Amino acid sequence: MQRPVSAFTIDLYELTMAAAYWTRKIHASASFELFVRRLPANRNFLIAAGLERALAYLENFHFEPEEVYFLRQHPVFHNIDKGFFDYLGNLRFSGEAWAMEEGTPFFPDEPILRITAPVIEAQLFETALLSILGFETAIASKAARVVHAAQGRPVAEFGSRHAHGPDAALYAARAAYLAGCTSTSNVEAGQLFSIPISGTMAHSFVMAYHDEVQSFTDFVGIFGNQTTLLLDTYDTMRALDGMIGAKLHPRAVRLDSGDRLALSKQVRTRLDEAGLEDVKIAVTGDLNEWKIEELLRQGAPIDAFGVGTEMATSKDDPVVSCVYKLVRIEAGAKPYYRAKLSAEKQTYPSCKQVFRFYGEDGLLDHDVLTASGEQMPGGEPLLKKVMVDGRRTSSKVLPLQDLRDYCSAQRRKLPERLLDLHQEQKYRVDVSSRLIDMLEELREAQGVEL
Amino acid sequence: MQRPVSAFTIDLYELTMAAAYWTRKIHASASFELFVRRLPANRNFLIAAGLERALAYLENFHFEPEEVYFLRQHPVFHNIDKGFFDYLGNLRFSGEAWAMEEGTPFFPDEPILRITAPVIEAQLFETALLSILGFETAIASKAARVVHAAQGRPVAEFGSRHAHGPDAALYAARAAYLAGCTSTSNVEAGQLFSIPISGTMAHSFVMAYHDEVQSFTDFVGIFGNQTTLLLDTYDTMRALDGMIGAKLHPRAVRLDSGDRLALSKQVRTRLDEAGLEDVKIAVTGDLNEWKIEELLRQGAPIDAFGVGTEMATSKDDPVVSCVYKLVRIEAGAKPYYRAKLSAEKQTYPSCKQVFRFYGEDGLLDHDVLTASGEQMPGGEPLLKKVMVDGRRTSSKVLPLQDLRDYCSAQRRKLPERLLDLHQEQKYRVDVSSRLIDMLEELREAQGVEL
Repeated sequence: MQRPVSAFTIDLYELTMAAAYWTRKIHASASFELFVRRLPANRNFLIAAGLERALAYLENFHFEPEEVYFLRQHPVFHNIDKGFFDYLGNLRFSGEAWAMEEGTPFFPDEPILRITAPVIEAQLFETALLSILGFETAIASKAARVVHAAQGRPVAEFGSRHAHGPDAALYAARAAYLAGCTSTSNVEAGQLFSIPISGTMAHSFVMAYHDEVQSFTDFVGIFGNQTTLLLDTYDTMRALDGMIGAKLHPRAVRLDSGDRLALSKQVRTRLDEAGLEDVKIAVTGDLNEWKIEELLRQGAPIDAFGVGTEMATSKDDPVVSCVYKLVRIEAGAKPYYRAKLSAEKQTYPSCKQVFRFYGEDGLLDHDVLTASGEQMPGGEPLLKKVMVDGRRTSSKVLPLQDLRDYCSAQRRKLPERLLDLHQEQKYRVDVSSRLIDMLEELREAQGVEL
Repeated sequence: MQRPVSAFTIDLYELTMAAAYWTRKIHASASFELFVRRLPANRNFLIAAGLERALAYLENFHFEPEEVYFLRQHPVFHNIDKGFFDYLGNLRFSGEAWAMEEGTPFFPDEPILRITAPVIEAQLFETALLSILGFETAIASKAARVVHAAQGRPVAEFGSRHAHGPDAALYAARAAYLAGCTSTSNVEAGQLFSIPISGTMAHSFVMAYHDEVQSFTDFVGIFGNQTTLLLDTYDTMRALDGMIGAKLHPRAVRLDSGDRLALSKQVRTRLDEAGLEDVKIAVTGDLNEWKIEELLRQGAPIDAFGVGTEMATSKDDPVVSCVYKLVRIEAGAKPYYRAKLSAEKQTYPSCKQVFRFYGEDGLLDHDVLTASGEQMPGGEPLLKKVMVDGRRTSSKVLPLQDLRDYCSAQRRKLPERLLDLHQEQKYRVDVSSRLIDMLEELREAQGVEL
């Protein structure tokens, strides 16, 4: 179940444009595509995420009566015929959507969503769709790197406290799980999306006692041996000695600060000496993919990671710079293709399809960006029709667990070089000659030189 | 009116700790403080924001029956007495809160919020409070820099599309307005918080027409001369010539791409030649405080800015690393002070007050961090009691406009050096000798060397 998104998650200009189209009786069918112009910093690929919430938003799209009233009273709309507000009050999404499945790796210029509907309608969704898909894609793409760095060890998502508000915390947890994390600390994400939830004690629990060991003994007494004890409130090794002295045998101990390479080795040695070979070591605290990679490269005996802030905010680059662009508009029987031609922000015209080609090793080899309707034998088309007449094509919503499995299979098909955490690596995306021809024709028509 | 925040915006460990406290009958009164350990990158000060939503969350805090049911079924709680779930079902915030007013500049180690309540309760709010206050503070602090760079020119917040989801978009708009922006594109923020909303047309509107000038003519025909026309869909100067040729006289033109220093000068010259001296130039597109400062330094004739992504995500550093730490717990009649003593993450014990001292010029001179109850003659205490017995001390919620005015007055009291956009500048925060003594005593009691 997705948290609802208000139709008022909208920039004013989408409503002023709607009023202009309505006034001029422009109801031509238009297609908009959502894609990124370039990759964020440190990313060699992106993982598409957020589609479920985006489709739920589209299916439920409507303006509440008080929202229509608010607009009607607003000075900017004073010249607009009152019929426009009746139109808004009755407006629902009536069009078609094509999309890449959540969990699919993708690259610049490749649309992950296309909306086709009367222009007045299709352009209303820009802000909400960009915000939903861009954010979840940013987090999933970051999480895929973190999960890769952990080399199969479980990664718990812990970042709710520093996410951009409660709703971002919830959806960061979802995106991180989609991309391979094994659990989240966010209880709402556990409830709404059936993500495994994890977490035991904070430093404040230890600090609420006069005696650290007593806090451990109480906690194990209550939750049993399947719990995790936090060692670094005062002094990690002393806390460990206290735990061992009290004959406690938790499932794991957690290190949240200090030199976690040295400490994890010391803790492992001491645990093993005490016959606690099966007690796991979990490490948390300001981690990211590079720190995890380095800890493991240096042989830190760590069994599990908890990653918070850096993953839940995609801290090194918190934005996937996606755009939602008009690519086609139909006036009468004839479609007109559209592209933005200004120097920095050029786009390709026409509705598109992305075909993916795999090498003999089964890994991604290259993609081809084509006009929709073009055929590319041997290529896998990535965009599928997901909505028609404003409703989903399938009434069955895939469980998040299935999307996570799909994403995992997709990530395994990425060539190793794209998974490098340090080197920028390009993936080949060809553009079909038909698309290039259409762009040239458009430039000629506009008198802009290619 | 604030958007509600679920009590399930919570990390699992807060609930496991609650179960442990409940089982051991630990209901001691505890105080937690929310503060930052260090400033984000490129920030010399922070602007406190998010308090209104935080207080609304605390006042409405409760678990829904289905949430209690979810927990009760969860394996981690299988050993917990069923009485705990009845306790959770009836739990409301019963304590006290002290806070800095929204819009107040603050610095590391200074608490902006303190919660005092039975420990089981007070520790439940950690995740939600950090997420709410940390996020809005991040955006307000970034926006204050952008507004400063614009030197009095209006700054419109345009970042919803790249915010971390729809809820983050709404609250980024609120925080940016609090910190001095003049409007937002986010319509929901206009409706809920009475923020002025702005926006006219996107490139897609121009692209929906065969003729760019016709799109301008239509738009002005509908919205009148108080609108803004977007010039850079194809070629900025050609679009301007078309607009002038059609005898259009909008309030402003907008430049969203290209070399905006050169273009703004060319556009200004051409407008003036055409007798359109009163037509303003608005500039948007990937702006931040440094780009605005540089444009103005080079004499760009820009009248207004629109800033999106970089402000709505605090892109250069998207996280205010705030923490919520136990500082005091009362067992029986005697209070125990608490601090985390581990090397990287040391904190000060005791409930605190922050006193601000001003120089003869009326500007901030230095602050003193004290134990609560200490007096500092001549200093302004920044923390005020805002909730008691789980309810606000004042039934009157300050309008956002008043908070914005207060913030504006506060920003004018910042010394110029702190407003430098390039140089790191430290502000003096002294710590009272009593606080230092308390920290030393605590280290001695724990056997940790100072």
